[in-house]
Amino acid sequence: MKLNTLLTIAETQAYVKEMKKSGKTVALVPTMGALHAGHLQLMQAAKAKCDVVIASIFVNPMQFGPNEDYAAYPRDFAADCEKLASAQVDAVFHPAPAEMYPAGYATYVTVEDDSTGKLCGAKRPGHFRGVATVVTKLLNITQADRAFFGQKDAQQVVVIKRFVRDLNLPVVVEMVPIMRAENGLALSSRNAYLSAAEKEAALVLSQSLQKAEKAYKSGQLQAEDLRAIVRQHIQNEKLAELDYVELYSFPDLREMTVVNETAILAIAVKIGAVRLIDNTILEA
Amino acid sequence: MKLNTLLTIAETQAYVKEMKKSGKTVALVPTMGALHAGHLQLMQAAKAKCDVVIASIFVNPMQFGPNEDYAAYPRDFAADCEKLASAQVDAVFHPAPAEMYPAGYATYVTVEDDSTGKLCGAKRPGHFRGVATVVTKLLNITQADRAFFGQKDAQQVVVIKRFVRDLNLPVVVEMVPIMRAENGLALSSRNAYLSAAEKEAALVLSQSLQKAEKAYKSGQLQAEDLRAIVRQHIQNEKLAELDYVELYSFPDLREMTVVNETAILAIAVKIGAVRLIDNTILEA
Repeated sequence: MKLNTLLTIAETQAYVKEMKKSGKTVALVPTMGALHAGHLQLMQAAKAKCDVVIASIFVNPMQFGPNEDYAAYPRDFAADCEKLASAQVDAVFHPAPAEMYPAGYATYVTVEDDSTGKLCGAKRPGHFRGVATVVTKLLNITQADRAFFGQKDAQQVVVIKRFVRDLNLPVVVEMVPIMRAENGLALSSRNAYLSAAEKEAALVLSQSLQKAEKAYKSGQLQAEDLRAIVRQHIQNEKLAELDYVELYSFPDLREMTVVNETAILAIAVKIGAVRLIDNTILEA
Repeated sequence: MKLNTLLTIAETQAYVKEMKKSGKTVALVPTMGALHAGHLQLMQAAKAKCDVVIASIFVNPMQFGPNEDYAAYPRDFAADCEKLASAQVDAVFHPAPAEMYPAGYATYVTVEDDSTGKLCGAKRPGHFRGVATVVTKLLNITQADRAFFGQKDAQQVVVIKRFVRDLNLPVVVEMVPIMRAENGLALSSRNAYLSAAEKEAALVLSQSLQKAEKAYKSGQLQAEDLRAIVRQHIQNEKLAELDYVELYSFPDLREMTVVNETAILAIAVKIGAVRLIDNTILEA
């Protein structure tokens, strides 16, 4: 099967129109490229539920802060296309920035509740505005019936579900569990930045979460104690610097002192210059 | 033909799905009710272009400022439905505020360019955010192929065209010319607030615009001189208080000192306690 490469919005709309005319359902898997096995798992989940799978590859300038890694973000379109073709994805939408944000562009989608002010939202001002805006555009362009996102960016999924419901977008949003390397490291395009020593050090993310989860399953329900377990574990790794460790109810991200309902334990850690995130859901 | 009354989003989605299944095109005419002949002209324009016409009647709290007339805004759903039925409109979508903005609602669509900071945007902060948000929701709910808006709210049409293009909403936005009473008064639901004397005084809006337009057609191209004609005419009416008179390029609303391309001359005037707007397009 051939992978259809769609570089413009008009081409994509025409492609989708054709697919829908023959009664096919359409899945969208938005990515920023630099695809790894975690992305391919999203593609499989999409294939299982829809007739046609469109992956988008767009490093969205709007969701990067001025001091973040937009320019340096890994890009390898040719390699990505090979992976998508092997995964039998039907089409890839890969627009240029000027195709998505032409001169005079002026519209933003914002979510103004607790879901954007916490965790990465507090650390990356404007980030979720950029995410909400680009995902709204991608959903409108592809008219997707279902869209698939990874749990690694759990807060992103919460924000997306919020504006999809609020704006009455006719799409079902699905969250796919985190995919990890055998040693536990959550797969991420940003792992490509890590040296061998840093990759080793990065194991503190998943290990600290596992430790806290084990304590939770043994009856530790105090949020502060669970956060402290993570904090202490990460302190022991010299290459690691904790950005945040937070525990909120999930999916509504309310503060909690005692874990008496489903919660998310989420962390951001700098390993050298690379900021990584990870999380685990503590089922009630 | 029966007018279908749709009170919930789910009903409306089901109705539209049924219509689209049989290959019908759908028009949306968003209104805040208190329908007059100007609205019915929008319905006719919609009927001429689409198979199914849905009018929405929703007095949108999000687009009113705290000191504006949200509570007092005229509402008469039964009379509106009679008018829609006579005009052979297919369905009316009339949601409660809590249906559109349920508890936890948090998403806003904003247009951050010159189109929202001028004219009514400068005088009514947050107004166009409310308009953009509710129209996005209405378009998503009805999956309209075309949506119809009146030129009286010309700035609103500019803003809507902007975010429809920016967010890649799959809809064509159409602007229908201003409908006027025989004496020139632009039809508006807010005219219902006027006493007989005020209704007479309100003629200064259309008369002052006509005067300026006549001067323009006779070769007066200086924006400030055209504005002055309006200003002077309105000053002569004791019941009238000018809020703004502005002249911008149309539809992009850039400043201009000499009218050397298509422009809009737009005014807002308080007649007693009632704020009315009117405009005329000066064709290049």
